[in-house]
Amino acid sequence: MPASEGPGRRRDPEVDRRIAQAALEVFADTGWAGFAMETVARRAGVGKASLYLRWSSKETLLTDAVTLRLARVFDADTGTLHGDLVQLAGQVLDIYTGSTGRAASRLTLEAAAIPGVAAHYDAMRASQRHAARAIVRRGIDRGEVAGNVSVTLLLETLVGGAMMHALTTPPAALAADTSGYALRLVDFLLDAVTTQTAH
Amino acid sequence: MPASEGPGRRRDPEVDRRIAQAALEVFADTGWAGFAMETVARRAGVGKASLYLRWSSKETLLTDAVTLRLARVFDADTGTLHGDLVQLAGQVLDIYTGSTGRAASRLTLEAAAIPGVAAHYDAMRASQRHAARAIVRRGIDRGEVAGNVSVTLLLETLVGGAMMHALTTPPAALAADTSGYALRLVDFLLDAVTTQTAH
Repeated sequence: MPASEGPGRRRDPEVDRRIAQAALEVFADTGWAGFAMETVARRAGVGKASLYLRWSSKETLLTDAVTLRLARVFDADTGTLHGDLVQLAGQVLDIYTGSTGRAASRLTLEAAAIPGVAAHYDAMRASQRHAARAIVRRGIDRGEVAGNVSVTLLLETLVGGAMMHALTTPPAALAADTSGYALRLVDFLLDAVTTQTAH
Repeated sequence: MPASEGPGRRRDPEVDRRIAQAALEVFADTGWAGFAMETVARRAGVGKASLYLRWSSKETLLTDAVTLRLARVFDADTGTLHGDLVQLAGQVLDIYTGSTGRAASRLTLEAAAIPGVAAHYDAMRASQRHAARAIVRRGIDRGEVAGNVSVTLLLETLVGGAMMHALTTPPAALAADTSGYALRLVDFLLDAVTTQTAH
């Protein structure tokens, strides 16, 4: 172990970052069943002792890795419903792309069964749901959509559609047209909402 | 091992079914990283020898379990686009519900990395995509939607929305309103499509 990483010394944030990234990748590849401190240390290119110095358990390591490295949905508040939803669709496409995307999908499946991670993940999901609903509520307040719009259907088709697209589109095609797809998806769904509420 | 299960004797289809179901459940719980013949045998309540008599490897066991036990999307052909899409939404809700639903989600993530399962899974996905696209193409032929409808956006929002709903709704609430949700989802999206293509 390098002296600079010994107890009582300042921790190197670059090493923290590298370990967190390696932890997400191991989790993406093997899930919780294959998640081991030793595997993460090897992937990050650090000693196992160096890892235990920072994290005392697999649970706290994975929780911190999710917090540090996983993109998440936040409320951008661009001033229009259309702008906010395009941001939201883009964030979902980012989250479900690449190795962090596989980690995010695995969390959906496994978080409830991982001690210590479940509560953290539930709180993260609740805050994302809250952010997404706030976007639509502001649109209603500004009169951009009617008050009787189905917030649940709009958000499930938007988030689910973007997720499905990210999971089934080849990486190169996905990267080439992320913002174009987000725009077409939102136009498609907003047209549905404005027509139906005007009935 | 019971004599009736010895080599050369007729295999009991009920035992096959029980093993296939146990295999899907183990895969749902732990993914490929935790998938072992011994664990499946224990879960199914059969001897390990009884399992190896039927399947020589984990790969062939999981492939057969997926074929035998996993619900899949098929083309119902009810005569109308609306009717076909409601069937499709219902099938997706069924697939992503319960323990087989977790197995289906895991396959999305892991199939490509499991030798022998990847090709089988790709063929299954291609046939499902084909069935879904045939539904929309028949709707176009019958004049129920315009020829310039975005088939990809319609199917990604429908399948993604249903999947998202199944993955995020508590099981009891989901079971109580599966067909109601399928209907609302299809009405929501078909309105979008018929308006936009009429522009």
